[in-house]
Amino acid sequence: MKKVGVIGGGQLARMMIPAAINLGLDVQVFAEAEDSPASLAATWVGDYRDVEQVSTFAARVEVLTFDHEHVPTEVLEQVRVSGVVIAPSPEALALTHDKIVMRKSLSALEVPQPRWGVIEPSVSSAEVVEEVGGFPCVAKKPIGGYDGKGVRVIDSLQEIEDWIAQGPVLLEEKVPFVRELALVSARRHGGEWVPWLPVETRQVDGVCSEVIAPAPGMSSAFIQQADTLSRLIADEVGIVGVLAVEVFELPDGSVVVNELAMRPHNSGHVFTELSITSQFEQHLRAVADIPLGSPSFTSPVGVMVNILGGIESAAKDAAWRVVPEAKIHDYGKTARAGRKVGHVVVTGSELEHTLARAEQARSLVNRPG
Amino acid sequence: MKKVGVIGGGQLARMMIPAAINLGLDVQVFAEAEDSPASLAATWVGDYRDVEQVSTFAARVEVLTFDHEHVPTEVLEQVRVSGVVIAPSPEALALTHDKIVMRKSLSALEVPQPRWGVIEPSVSSAEVVEEVGGFPCVAKKPIGGYDGKGVRVIDSLQEIEDWIAQGPVLLEEKVPFVRELALVSARRHGGEWVPWLPVETRQVDGVCSEVIAPAPGMSSAFIQQADTLSRLIADEVGIVGVLAVEVFELPDGSVVVNELAMRPHNSGHVFTELSITSQFEQHLRAVADIPLGSPSFTSPVGVMVNILGGIESAAKDAAWRVVPEAKIHDYGKTARAGRKVGHVVVTGSELEHTLARAEQARSLVNRPG
Repeated sequence: MKKVGVIGGGQLARMMIPAAINLGLDVQVFAEAEDSPASLAATWVGDYRDVEQVSTFAARVEVLTFDHEHVPTEVLEQVRVSGVVIAPSPEALALTHDKIVMRKSLSALEVPQPRWGVIEPSVSSAEVVEEVGGFPCVAKKPIGGYDGKGVRVIDSLQEIEDWIAQGPVLLEEKVPFVRELALVSARRHGGEWVPWLPVETRQVDGVCSEVIAPAPGMSSAFIQQADTLSRLIADEVGIVGVLAVEVFELPDGSVVVNELAMRPHNSGHVFTELSITSQFEQHLRAVADIPLGSPSFTSPVGVMVNILGGIESAAKDAAWRVVPEAKIHDYGKTARAGRKVGHVVVTGSELEHTLARAEQARSLVNRPG
Repeated sequence: MKKVGVIGGGQLARMMIPAAINLGLDVQVFAEAEDSPASLAATWVGDYRDVEQVSTFAARVEVLTFDHEHVPTEVLEQVRVSGVVIAPSPEALALTHDKIVMRKSLSALEVPQPRWGVIEPSVSSAEVVEEVGGFPCVAKKPIGGYDGKGVRVIDSLQEIEDWIAQGPVLLEEKVPFVRELALVSARRHGGEWVPWLPVETRQVDGVCSEVIAPAPGMSSAFIQQADTLSRLIADEVGIVGVLAVEVFELPDGSVVVNELAMRPHNSGHVFTELSITSQFEQHLRAVADIPLGSPSFTSPVGVMVNILGGIESAAKDAAWRVVPEAKIHDYGKTARAGRKVGHVVVTGSELEHTLARAEQARSLVNRPG
């Protein structure tokens, strides 16, 4: 039985466990705490920034992958010396550690992006603002932002003076997008690459609230354009595992890249119920070097809605009685305002009804954190 | 988080783990050996015939359920004194321990069965043979048979002299069935009851080889008849959990009961990929007293084929390359002639193609034990 180590004990690692059981893989989790969501498969509890701990854990497995992208590159490079396979590689992951590195890499690949520049002491800020099309524009802290944190839409540089004082700030054109999509795919060692159909992601306050799969109204030419884009990134960066490319769709039907993630991603949760192969299974197949599964959908439409804040455990029964087709995933996390603590998936034959059912289930179990 | 204890560490317990993760239940397994298929969730390794061990294990959980039906009734009755909920109950399980007890109970419920009688010293064997319609008829050891073991089609009593010397033997009419079906459903504490559509089971040498879901060519009247039958048994026996009623379909479209199982059953494996709610999830919902999920199918047809003997691990890659839509479940058991070591499910829109694909995947990975 192939041994796969997962750094991080969060909900993504947790959702890899069912896939591992079905695939017959031995998944071992390096968790941050005893009560992590993935504690069932935890064989180590410790600090992922500690080379010695990660190396000892890595020596027990054949391939190392991730629940999150926070392991420092230096740690991974030192661990790799021992011979363990790391997927995705430290070089690929570096793109997700620093948004400026990501923008530079995508520019080198000539991938369509919003216009961008970096506010730093050596350049003229006015020129950078002009480069990205003037105000309003989008300012991003290069490191550590997520779920709308570290991102501000600004009308003047005064609004990011606190960030500028700390180091370089990424400035991006505020593109007039009509919607946001996620292009989720998986690439295996050796280059086998399998995409799911693009999905539409709907955000509230910068946090994904709903995912609609497939994204409505796509032509086959549009899908081909999306596939070409994400395959280019997957191949050129040499990603192994799931890749999520978050893109903006522009009024002319073209897309530009917003963000990258190199692991199972919130936008791909819907595939667990909608696709023959879930993103967790596909990620494990890719990193364990098993042929990738079919990404076909088994229903015409699927909807995923995130639960933020907290889940009222006692209310789950009522939700299931009213919406027996809802798959309510509870990550087992303590409640906190804005925290992703679970999600609901409903599949069906028609979008409006399916979305309404998923939202109904969510509203029954959700309580503010 | 509700704690559910599962006695038995086999593949059924193993397949409950993904469902438990998704439902947010804490499943703990009482396994027979360290390397059991369900070892990931094992919190006890020991002997399920030992009251003290089972009681200590039971004290840690809120409800006790089963991977198999072998726990002696006396053990369960003593364990229940401590207050743990046992689902299904020892009284219900008693029907599965002894086929003569099952026949008597079903007769009391006036459920359609093959004609039956018991060969024992106090009665005339010739009369029993006549009661069941003469030779050929079916002889069954009342206790311990499974997968065709302990069952013989006989033309004379000489063929079961060895069994008669050991105790009572159940004799049953050899009914002229046109096919075998399984009626799988789940019943919750309090009586909520949800069936899946009946499935057709195809046996080779007395062992289930393929399951076709739904069973082809059923009228709505036929489905209603099947539902009425299995609900009657579930309610009257007071089952909590999954109930599988194996039936013979006769040429006139009526059905008679062959066997009962009170746990997730081989015939229900297809629902993991075909239904919104798998039998493992539904079983856990029923025993943990959570509203039952939707049994709707997400594809027109699903096929499950058993893998007997052994699985050639190295051949799985080839199978996945050729049949990427196949879900190959490997129970992680050592190979042995005739042993169920895994199964394959394929879902699709048309039976012949779907069955052919599942069989193709099986033939690529299967090797004689």
